[in-house]
Amino acid sequence: MSIVVAGTIAFDSVKTPFGECERVLGGSAVYAALAASVFGPVKLVGVVGKDFTQEQFRVLGDKGIDTEGVTVGEGNTFFWRGEYGWDLSNPDTLATELNTLEGYQPRVPEAYRETPYVFLANIHPSVQMQVLEQMPRPRLVVCDTMNYWIENTPGELREVLKKVDVCLLNETEARMLTGEKNILKMARAVHAMGPPYAVIKKGEHGAVLSTREEVFCTPAFLLESIFDPTGAGDTFAGGFLGYLAARGKTDTASFKKAVVYGSVLATFAVEDFSVRRLAALGAADLEKRFAQFRQLTCF
Amino acid sequence: MSIVVAGTIAFDSVKTPFGECERVLGGSAVYAALAASVFGPVKLVGVVGKDFTQEQFRVLGDKGIDTEGVTVGEGNTFFWRGEYGWDLSNPDTLATELNTLEGYQPRVPEAYRETPYVFLANIHPSVQMQVLEQMPRPRLVVCDTMNYWIENTPGELREVLKKVDVCLLNETEARMLTGEKNILKMARAVHAMGPPYAVIKKGEHGAVLSTREEVFCTPAFLLESIFDPTGAGDTFAGGFLGYLAARGKTDTASFKKAVVYGSVLATFAVEDFSVRRLAALGAADLEKRFAQFRQLTCF
Repeated sequence: MSIVVAGTIAFDSVKTPFGECERVLGGSAVYAALAASVFGPVKLVGVVGKDFTQEQFRVLGDKGIDTEGVTVGEGNTFFWRGEYGWDLSNPDTLATELNTLEGYQPRVPEAYRETPYVFLANIHPSVQMQVLEQMPRPRLVVCDTMNYWIENTPGELREVLKKVDVCLLNETEARMLTGEKNILKMARAVHAMGPPYAVIKKGEHGAVLSTREEVFCTPAFLLESIFDPTGAGDTFAGGFLGYLAARGKTDTASFKKAVVYGSVLATFAVEDFSVRRLAALGAADLEKRFAQFRQLTCF
Repeated sequence: MSIVVAGTIAFDSVKTPFGECERVLGGSAVYAALAASVFGPVKLVGVVGKDFTQEQFRVLGDKGIDTEGVTVGEGNTFFWRGEYGWDLSNPDTLATELNTLEGYQPRVPEAYRETPYVFLANIHPSVQMQVLEQMPRPRLVVCDTMNYWIENTPGELREVLKKVDVCLLNETEARMLTGEKNILKMARAVHAMGPPYAVIKKGEHGAVLSTREEVFCTPAFLLESIFDPTGAGDTFAGGFLGYLAARGKTDTASFKKAVVYGSVLATFAVEDFSVRRLAALGAADLEKRFAQFRQLTCF
């Protein structure tokens, strides 16, 4: 079954200790859509500028990503410039140019509205809400966010969370959102805000899935080198929901495997700048690494 | 099959944000021996002072721990006073009194010498070496250490490592010992020092087992509250080797399960001060939490 992914479409300029790249394709919805496309059809909702070329549309189209929901606004595409230190955790943001993202009102095409699976990738919560308002009865809604919205638009974010089935957060964001320090307490506080499922991502230390009844933990795949961590969380989310949509089930066993597929897909995203590795990823690559992950973690 | 555990026997005074205790039973060999005793017979090698009472010997004896290898020296038992902050990671050491540990030369009783499994718990590497010299042909030797010995007696520690099958380290210690930052590279550097198996403990983030051919990762059991982390690493080690000795196999599948049993046992150790919870632990408690751990991590 197909999924709708709504979020940012961006050009990123990124510097890591291993190299740098200028104005390459990025954005929360782009990483997520490419990751999800490994499992099946994806419909994209977002906004770009006049500088978004056919070449970039082709990267998406080649993966079967429907871009009817991508608005082409006046001006340039949202731009982010960031730099990572040796620890490859929080990057320094050197520039953010909202451009066409400023005042963006998402338009969900008629053909998207009955899509059962929805991923609200990281973007202003009012945009997330507008997307949901145009989708009358999704089967499963997954939502990501970031520290900026937790701090600056907490009321709007809380309203979105009331309508969401799965909330994805990294550990720092979960702490900010809930005020809790313990992972289990964080997850319960997220459930109390609405979402019956919470996924707390711990970066190189793996991820925790919490349902109201059960908790599941997975370590991260051990990588010898990480080239560029940009988009790893978005990729995780896209893989997570892409797997669930392809499987067509939302039982706990499927959720657990979805967390593992998300983790495995994220390991590809960080192997190269931008979406290069994701765009070149085949199902066989994914299944091979999934099998390695099972061997790495099962006893 | 039985195991020999050699290391410190101590009185600890510990303060955590949740309470404090004065001069309670502790020490690397005590935690490890109690953990291993869940699986089978344990023979203890260490030194105590005149202040070590029948009550303390009884805690060990009640678990079937053989104390013929415990030397009773003049003066008092080794004493440590430490305090943990809210993050419960590295404690501040407020006092260390070596007492009978000063100049201690371990004596391995005749009846211990053919024991196939040996755990060299954290203690001066020259003591670890003297224990090994008295044990002509152990089947498997596991060694723990700490930052202090890595910094202050690196040459002696390296000599011990040459004779060891499994080296246990926490992540900080592994970084200090090897100079590497990446877990996989740390593990390979440990292998190059001798041990064909390395276990790198990441505290609340789980543990990594590395063999020369394979890597295994496990998350930590999620706990809502940790009362006192003292001895968690020693308990992990005791559980790890105790399981291997009971199983009588040293194939990779057994090593993986040993890591899980070590992790599970450590969760009991931190639930109360001193060895109280470990001393009261039954096989049924352990198997129940092992099953929970499997559900928590398997997909």
